[in-house]
Amino acid sequence: MDNRIRVGIVGYGNLGKGVELALKQNPDFILKGIFTRRDVSSLDTDSKVIHISEILDYKDDIDVMILCGGSANDLPEQGPMLAAHFNTVDSYDNHNNIPQYFDSVNKAASKANKVSLISVGWDPGLFSLARLLFESVLPDGENYTFWGKGVSQGHSDAIRRIEGVKAAVQYTIPSEEAIERIRAGDNPKLEATERHTRVCYVVPYDMNDRDRIEKEIKSMPNYFLGYDTTVHFISEEEFIKNHTKMPHGGWVIRTGTSENNNKQRMEFSLSLESNPEFTSSVLVAFARAVNRIAQEGKKGAFTVFDIPFAYLSPRSGEELRKELL
Amino acid sequence: MDNRIRVGIVGYGNLGKGVELALKQNPDFILKGIFTRRDVSSLDTDSKVIHISEILDYKDDIDVMILCGGSANDLPEQGPMLAAHFNTVDSYDNHNNIPQYFDSVNKAASKANKVSLISVGWDPGLFSLARLLFESVLPDGENYTFWGKGVSQGHSDAIRRIEGVKAAVQYTIPSEEAIERIRAGDNPKLEATERHTRVCYVVPYDMNDRDRIEKEIKSMPNYFLGYDTTVHFISEEEFIKNHTKMPHGGWVIRTGTSENNNKQRMEFSLSLESNPEFTSSVLVAFARAVNRIAQEGKKGAFTVFDIPFAYLSPRSGEELRKELL
Repeated sequence: MDNRIRVGIVGYGNLGKGVELALKQNPDFILKGIFTRRDVSSLDTDSKVIHISEILDYKDDIDVMILCGGSANDLPEQGPMLAAHFNTVDSYDNHNNIPQYFDSVNKAASKANKVSLISVGWDPGLFSLARLLFESVLPDGENYTFWGKGVSQGHSDAIRRIEGVKAAVQYTIPSEEAIERIRAGDNPKLEATERHTRVCYVVPYDMNDRDRIEKEIKSMPNYFLGYDTTVHFISEEEFIKNHTKMPHGGWVIRTGTSENNNKQRMEFSLSLESNPEFTSSVLVAFARAVNRIAQEGKKGAFTVFDIPFAYLSPRSGEELRKELL
Repeated sequence: MDNRIRVGIVGYGNLGKGVELALKQNPDFILKGIFTRRDVSSLDTDSKVIHISEILDYKDDIDVMILCGGSANDLPEQGPMLAAHFNTVDSYDNHNNIPQYFDSVNKAASKANKVSLISVGWDPGLFSLARLLFESVLPDGENYTFWGKGVSQGHSDAIRRIEGVKAAVQYTIPSEEAIERIRAGDNPKLEATERHTRVCYVVPYDMNDRDRIEKEIKSMPNYFLGYDTTVHFISEEEFIKNHTKMPHGGWVIRTGTSENNNKQRMEFSLSLESNPEFTSSVLVAFARAVNRIAQEGKKGAFTVFDIPFAYLSPRSGEELRKELL
């Protein structure tokens, strides 16, 4: 009998492609299909591709649907809609709107006796778990989250909207100095502008526009104004050669003080050559947990905070206790 | 109505004292008593002290008993015995014997409809959680655990047994070079002797014995032979001034490779001025989880792998989603 967990992928951007790849490293899963809004013949993949309009025909063939749409436009609609028919996992990452999103998915999933795990990835996701663990163990202290070195899609887009810019990428870089102060246990108050610097690589149409472009970047409110920002102008060749990957990473750090005044530091960090492929790997591990809690008869919306780590692994509790504890 | 979690501490060594301190930072707990085998008047504490022979009189007054005895002699006996009457949490840390210990505690707790959470601390404990998370997210990779810089009680004791040694402490120090190789994604095969170096501070009765003592240390099988070992001879004053704290720490590192050949690195690390106080802080956070799963009607033995992180926090799920996710 085939006991593999039957999954579907909804959406075939960077994240959906990453999930397709990650599933190959996890033989306890079987990919039943990729659901897309696009013309099914346009997807470059060996997996089965199904138009999203037919998704409800697969209600009995999928244990967990992995939602790989974006948080701005896709998930607010798709999340609750699909939670009414499938167990789901998604990477909804609009921090401010998580409570509302949780409520709408929870309502749909509860009514349908399904399980939906929302906001899975690394932030929100693994970094959230670190923040929760750290403050629970060391109540007297402060959490700090740093992102980078990594590409910020939003900042890169903002530069590309400036006139005369052909291509651009922006790296967010955590301040080493700020990290060292926190490690020393100072518990400093630090603005976002003090925690990160910004480095931009820009391909201009005309090298004569460099001064104007640099000025426009550095004076852009919310995005760059107030930040230590460096702008490098480079050729298109160099851009393609060195700046088309999607690395990212970051730290969660807490220095706490014991009642006896001893300093205790906890750190969790990631260094990723591919940001979307890592988020995908996290989604797949948590899809395993979704299948398990659904089998236990639970229903409604859940977050990473509700999942015991044993549920992330294909190994038995006995094996985990023997080999990893 | 007083909703605080009522706890008892069994054993008043470094760990029991640490738990007493940690509880002061967690106002949702109330310490009902410290249980000891010693003369109750001999304990230097403001808390209520009760002789362990009376412990069963407190069956209805304690929600969770925090077991602070040692793994060599105390817990193998106390663990199952107390699991038959109380919900318990302990820091049993003899990795090889965890499966047997789990079975004996599980039998007692299941029969009594109680919950026992075993092997809570940082290794086993938080490091085990990191190992499990890391391998679940990045199946194609390797886990590495490093301990230190920190005092190894076992190695310090071994030195103190050498003739002519008045006082001694041994620090286990992780090899920076090994850590950098792993971070680079080499997935090297490394023996324990290559991952750690050992630095000893020794107070001899007679400075003329230095050569012999150093030779005896460096040739001690299992403990020092094969390791890069440095021995410093110091005065008793310096020893008392600089070497009586119990710092520790370490890393769990995994570099994995995505199916697309991108390197992804995850790290969890601790840097602790007081090792026993940190283990105590972890025990208290997990005692909260024990109380909660006991209230849910669960029974038997559990490990950190079975605990959702939400259960470690006094905050509501709603608050956690809003503020930490």
